[in-house]
Amino acid sequence: MTTSIAHLGPPGTYTEAATLAYMNHLAIEKGSNSLCPYPNIAQTVYSLAQGKADLAVVPVENSIEGSVAITLDLLWKLDQLQIQQSLILPIRHTLISRSSTLETITIVYSHPQALAQCQQWLERFLPGVKLVPTNSTTEALHYLDEDHTAAAIASERAAQLYELPILASALNDYPDNCTRFLVLGKQPSTGGSHTSLAFSTPANVPGALVKPLQVFAERGINMSRIESRPTKRLLGEYLFFIDIEADASQAAVKTALEELASYTEILKIFGSYNVLSV
Amino acid sequence: MTTSIAHLGPPGTYTEAATLAYMNHLAIEKGSNSLCPYPNIAQTVYSLAQGKADLAVVPVENSIEGSVAITLDLLWKLDQLQIQQSLILPIRHTLISRSSTLETITIVYSHPQALAQCQQWLERFLPGVKLVPTNSTTEALHYLDEDHTAAAIASERAAQLYELPILASALNDYPDNCTRFLVLGKQPSTGGSHTSLAFSTPANVPGALVKPLQVFAERGINMSRIESRPTKRLLGEYLFFIDIEADASQAAVKTALEELASYTEILKIFGSYNVLSV
Repeated sequence: MTTSIAHLGPPGTYTEAATLAYMNHLAIEKGSNSLCPYPNIAQTVYSLAQGKADLAVVPVENSIEGSVAITLDLLWKLDQLQIQQSLILPIRHTLISRSSTLETITIVYSHPQALAQCQQWLERFLPGVKLVPTNSTTEALHYLDEDHTAAAIASERAAQLYELPILASALNDYPDNCTRFLVLGKQPSTGGSHTSLAFSTPANVPGALVKPLQVFAERGINMSRIESRPTKRLLGEYLFFIDIEADASQAAVKTALEELASYTEILKIFGSYNVLSV
Repeated sequence: MTTSIAHLGPPGTYTEAATLAYMNHLAIEKGSNSLCPYPNIAQTVYSLAQGKADLAVVPVENSIEGSVAITLDLLWKLDQLQIQQSLILPIRHTLISRSSTLETITIVYSHPQALAQCQQWLERFLPGVKLVPTNSTTEALHYLDEDHTAAAIASERAAQLYELPILASALNDYPDNCTRFLVLGKQPSTGGSHTSLAFSTPANVPGALVKPLQVFAERGINMSRIESRPTKRLLGEYLFFIDIEADASQAAVKTALEELASYTEILKIFGSYNVLSV
């Protein structure tokens, strides 16, 4: 049976690299699956929601730039999406160009997150060049053939894939640059080391967030992440996304989640899954 | 005395509109001040930190798209910045183009946040057009003269300022679209309705965030916002940004902040200020 895996594309993105590592981990042969690259995160996730793909791989968090807001917003908005796996991929940016020297570079294209992650390198080695945002790191490569004073920031793998020369390596301002990706599916997801959930609180009362957090703290359940997102109704109204280091199928965690439901307005559980460093 | 106010530019941005409303509120005459537009948020804030400007106005939060991460990161990174005022501005996007009809539009330029805020409108009225991110809504206007099949998303005021025709109005997917801006300065900021602070926690232990939040909950101090940002050291390590509805110069709030310091690793207070809807 062929599994169709949607991912943020085009080919050569870090998300594609994470997807290939995931397939390798599951010992899925490349031929028996179909990889479907989409031009943005929304289209990638909708392809799963609408049944065009069996799984969708999208970035959720970078260690330098933080959350990928659209991924959290889609998890909340689209029901029935479950996290099957979390993947952590090290990010190593390279400068790709048809130019043979930094001196002639006048413009650098890349995804805004990649530009932000190399800000200090750019200020030091390419001060005053024009920085132009693109929809993905791979899209940035499209500008290099027509303009030899242009450069793009993308992965080493992208340079190889599109047969483009690397002008400089190790551009990251922070060496421990990692991105975490989610493999989303519609199968119920149980029996993993981490559980993700999100909720809205009944009102903006003092301590509205304290009780939900106490539910876990009292049971010694570690919360590895909390992120707020606007409800999009009113400025100052938020949803809270929480990751706990626990399996929702365990009795104690089930009880905690039942208690949590009594303190929240809407509570959504996105499943229990394992984290894989690739 | 002339006050020099740096803001995210170029002229015509929503940030400039917020800056002008702030000057109007303070009954500062336009002539007695110098407005200094900068091409991005980092340069705007650095101009204040380096003493080139007396105040800096930057966006911090949008009701639809959430936090402006770079603003929070700079507040944490650069010491001595204090919030003098918070400004809330309604956002009303318009489609600006030299074309007289939607049918001939093939490409739309704007800031990624504006493109995201009009996603449903774009899918409905301009399906399949190319969406190109720019550094600001005003920068998007630069492409319209050379290409009559191009459109930009920016404010009505920007269209008037650059004498460009409005092709469609009320593009926002959500009607209650507001952006909150901060007026930053170096003067100690006291005596306002809201206080902003940020902290790192000693370790990723269960409940590391519960105690800091309890400090406020126990005293009936409402927390109007909590936002996490990566420490940029390791994936999974966070800073927490909190806004409370209280004045840090009041005795009870001072005691709360002293107690808070005992539960945090590094604690930074960004001042107490008032919120103005403009």
